[in-house]
Amino acid sequence: MVEIEFWFEFASTYSYPAAMRIEALARAAERRVCWRPFLLGPIFQAQGWNDSPFNFQPAKGRYMWRDLERICARLGLPFRRPSVFPRNGLLAARLAVGCAGEDWLPEFVRRVYSANLGEDRDISQAEVLGAILESLAQPRSLLDRAHASRAKDELRAQTERAAARGIFGAPTFVVNGELFWGNDRLEEALAWRG
Amino acid sequence: MVEIEFWFEFASTYSYPAAMRIEALARAAERRVCWRPFLLGPIFQAQGWNDSPFNFQPAKGRYMWRDLERICARLGLPFRRPSVFPRNGLLAARLAVGCAGEDWLPEFVRRVYSANLGEDRDISQAEVLGAILESLAQPRSLLDRAHASRAKDELRAQTERAAARGIFGAPTFVVNGELFWGNDRLEEALAWRG
Repeated sequence: MVEIEFWFEFASTYSYPAAMRIEALARAAERRVCWRPFLLGPIFQAQGWNDSPFNFQPAKGRYMWRDLERICARLGLPFRRPSVFPRNGLLAARLAVGCAGEDWLPEFVRRVYSANLGEDRDISQAEVLGAILESLAQPRSLLDRAHASRAKDELRAQTERAAARGIFGAPTFVVNGELFWGNDRLEEALAWRG
Repeated sequence: MVEIEFWFEFASTYSYPAAMRIEALARAAERRVCWRPFLLGPIFQAQGWNDSPFNFQPAKGRYMWRDLERICARLGLPFRRPSVFPRNGLLAARLAVGCAGEDWLPEFVRRVYSANLGEDRDISQAEVLGAILESLAQPRSLLDRAHASRAKDELRAQTERAAARGIFGAPTFVVNGELFWGNDRLEEALAWRG
């Protein structure tokens, strides 16, 4: 089955609707989703940014929040503008990398996005992630995997792979090496036959 | 009839498919198109940029050219990557402002985009714009209007209005005060009932 790689960053706003939509759409298109958590921070830093463009470009930021609100309303997704943006997604990303391949991971990712962008919870906190693990009948002790050097090294390598592929934002979809950037390119990525 | 304002900049790549699509889609949606040429340069400069982000963010630029190529292929639009980017759209924008309301103006705009992004012609040149005017059975002397201080002042005022409305990129569509940014938001803007 053809794979669609879903490159996401937990702080990324437009990755939220993408994460909520991708599995059903991929099933209908007979594509297998590969979940690829990575960090945008190092990619932004490499071009001299130490914050999100949605913060240092205020007009673009105002537009993005309104646009995201419209998208969530259309999809029936809860939306609450986070009181802190961007949230630090490092711990969640390390956990996702440390638990790669587990069958509950896609639902974990979706619940972290809901917590961040639907409920304004602080996803940088071990307590918040631990509660999500419990809601999935997984032990909180899985958080230890996030702190293991294996997860740290693997997340660093994954972020370097993202940059090497030309990824500069999230969400990004990759199908047979072809890049599609943004939630609004998901359908096109799934239809790609190149 | 409800209006859709189409804010465009002649150098803007994604404004090309938007300009080619908007009239037929607006007619089907019973919307009247208001053509609003403006300049992105002063808006970029206000945030400290003296070039297009597609140039100073190379990964994003590479992606944009590939994405635009895919969009044009899908729409059956000619595409040739301009040998100079961004082209200087000042003269074309002044001409468009100076000839606002003329019934041939939308077709003039489309032909300027085709020249820039479909044929790699230098749209900063009076000769290129004059030939387009002639192809529309309009006198080349209309170019004089672009050089009149009225057109210069009006383009400056229009660009200030764009910034005041929160416009930060092109194309942008405005319906009843609601902003939609990007060629891929055209359908949503046309359907807006807010």
